[in-house]
Amino acid sequence: MDSEASSRQRIIETTARLLWSQGLRATGVQQIADESRAPRGSIYFHFPEGKEQLAAEALRSAGAVMTANITEALSHRNVKTAVRKFVDAYAIEMEASSFHHGCPIATVALEAAATSPVIRDVCARVFAEWEDLLAARLERDGKGKRESRKMAVVILSALEGAMILCRARRTTDPLKHVAEHLTAALEA
Amino acid sequence: MDSEASSRQRIIETTARLLWSQGLRATGVQQIADESRAPRGSIYFHFPEGKEQLAAEALRSAGAVMTANITEALSHRNVKTAVRKFVDAYAIEMEASSFHHGCPIATVALEAAATSPVIRDVCARVFAEWEDLLAARLERDGKGKRESRKMAVVILSALEGAMILCRARRTTDPLKHVAEHLTAALEA
Repeated sequence: MDSEASSRQRIIETTARLLWSQGLRATGVQQIADESRAPRGSIYFHFPEGKEQLAAEALRSAGAVMTANITEALSHRNVKTAVRKFVDAYAIEMEASSFHHGCPIATVALEAAATSPVIRDVCARVFAEWEDLLAARLERDGKGKRESRKMAVVILSALEGAMILCRARRTTDPLKHVAEHLTAALEA
Repeated sequence: MDSEASSRQRIIETTARLLWSQGLRATGVQQIADESRAPRGSIYFHFPEGKEQLAAEALRSAGAVMTANITEALSHRNVKTAVRKFVDAYAIEMEASSFHHGCPIATVALEAAATSPVIRDVCARVFAEWEDLLAARLERDGKGKRESRKMAVVILSALEGAMILCRARRTTDPLKHVAEHLTAALEA
């Protein structure tokens, strides 16, 4: 029998995975219980405020995984190569998942925008973290503060939007077109 | 008492409005019935295949409204001004709706990507229509066929992604940064 800590962690990871592919509303506590092999009671023991609390935790966890990926990509000497490598890896992930996986936050951010301020706020913080990483890297490379911030927003927006088109069309072409455009824009 | 055609139209418009702000999963037939003042029986009379059929029709209808807006914006002499005007109008719409309104298709496209091939396909067709309009306009302005297609994907992606960030953060800044970048890129 596993410890309470590992059971809690398994519930969070299962929830993050379900939110990633199907979003917030389609993901019920019963499915989380089934797929994490945890009784419903255990879910409410670890997350007494219920699904919203669990979803917030799962989004923070998924956000942190992506933050680590972005940090690793941005450790590359050349920021254009970093964008290219990140996109290439993501394109493979999307295809391997039959386009069930896009951004682990975007679906829920849109679902929650009008209905759950708590979840919306968690999503906003995760996006801000990614944007900060991009902006800091562009600034280190010599771009001005305001220009770096703007370009970080453009990169994040273009990749997020491309992932919507990729998932709708079941092709990675939009992501590749956007990467090509961004690397050229970073060159300029 | 209104005609069957106007009752059908009201059901579609109500559904499109609900999908716009809260997405597919949060929108139930009962809420559609309540808000369109149509009995549930009338919804199943007009849409015998149920919610999926009705959602597909509502997405096509919302897509057509946006297609008309894009066509109107693109009738402007200058494509950079067209993008700027479109974004300015959209930013006002988003703020006026307390950021409940973003893209009328994106939320559902992400929700459906892994769960409903029928709805996903409708979303893909609407996105393709918008992209075709943009690509055709860029080609008329003298860009090459392949370059026009790529730039259309970039514009659509960047605007779609920016709208996610706007809704999550409750600010129109991302849309404005992206518009500034796109108008500069179209200048180049």
